[in-house]
Amino acid sequence: MKIYGDKISGNCLKVLYTADYLNLPYEWVDIDISTGGSRTAGFLAKNPQGQVPIIELDDGRVLGQSNAIIRYLAHDTALLPTEPFEAAKVDEALFWEQYSHEPYIAVSRFQMLYEGKAPNERDSWRVARGESALEQMNAHLSSRDYWTDSGFSIADIALLAYTRVSTEGGFDLSTRPHVRRWITQCERLLRLSAVK
Amino acid sequence: MKIYGDKISGNCLKVLYTADYLNLPYEWVDIDISTGGSRTAGFLAKNPQGQVPIIELDDGRVLGQSNAIIRYLAHDTALLPTEPFEAAKVDEALFWEQYSHEPYIAVSRFQMLYEGKAPNERDSWRVARGESALEQMNAHLSSRDYWTDSGFSIADIALLAYTRVSTEGGFDLSTRPHVRRWITQCERLLRLSAVK
Repeated sequence: MKIYGDKISGNCLKVLYTADYLNLPYEWVDIDISTGGSRTAGFLAKNPQGQVPIIELDDGRVLGQSNAIIRYLAHDTALLPTEPFEAAKVDEALFWEQYSHEPYIAVSRFQMLYEGKAPNERDSWRVARGESALEQMNAHLSSRDYWTDSGFSIADIALLAYTRVSTEGGFDLSTRPHVRRWITQCERLLRLSAVK
Repeated sequence: MKIYGDKISGNCLKVLYTADYLNLPYEWVDIDISTGGSRTAGFLAKNPQGQVPIIELDDGRVLGQSNAIIRYLAHDTALLPTEPFEAAKVDEALFWEQYSHEPYIAVSRFQMLYEGKAPNERDSWRVARGESALEQMNAHLSSRDYWTDSGFSIADIALLAYTRVSTEGGFDLSTRPHVRRWITQCERLLRLSAVK
């Protein structure tokens, strides 16, 4: 399997975290999105949507969308429950992450880290929704170790990717102790060093 | 099973389309989002995120996120392949819909239908991305009957919900014949009347 991605993207890192946790063999192919690497003719032939990450199986089949990829890699492993409703609760988290978390927290981080914006130059509506997402996470995690009742799963990996670097997007985790505890636990399981 | 939703929302209609197609018994519970029906204490106790649709099983368990719900309802049916990679291609479409289609096409429609905006008062960046999504759909569907190679699936249902009413958001389907053909086919299977 090849993983095409850019390590500045949390969506790409989700795939790495999952593959590494599961000890899956892979070849990483670096795609520099800042110089249009996902818009070349060669890349668009693999993924017409021009988005990273994608995986390419040894037989040439290609799959895009970070959460679809990690769900595929996790099937029949401890990272995804087999019982249908428990799996659906993981899916619920994956869709929430892509709709109500990533567009606000990841994009605010992009604006600060890569577009050089100051915290007060971020889109205010994105900031408000990102703050709301982190508040919801803190409340949800106040009564549990991992996101779903099935233990550590790809729901945690998907949510971790941008939450652990949310301070780079101007968000404050110091007032969200349950989120911080959960980040530390997940990072330990994934053998990741804490973000400064 | 109870389905809580508002029929002005394509996300809620996806759940109805799926349940009806599969002949699943359900009770529909109307939640009027325009008057804050998804923000009442009673509703927030079921879904702290304050979003519709949700389903409530007979044992009281609750599931949110439209695409997680239809995926759950479709497991072990013809609407979702059992082979893991084929299922992952359906998931890829579900995530693409929520990230690269719904925020642009559904929100533009909301601005016109419910906020009374004229087409040129829509957010221009949303319009551009919605147009791009429809272009990608037209190109993708030019060589196939349904979204994935596995035949009619929840990928089609998820994408249909807001695509079939995209003209209400100021988008033009007349230049996208493959999308129109696909809409007609899906509507026939789901026994839906064509949108005027």
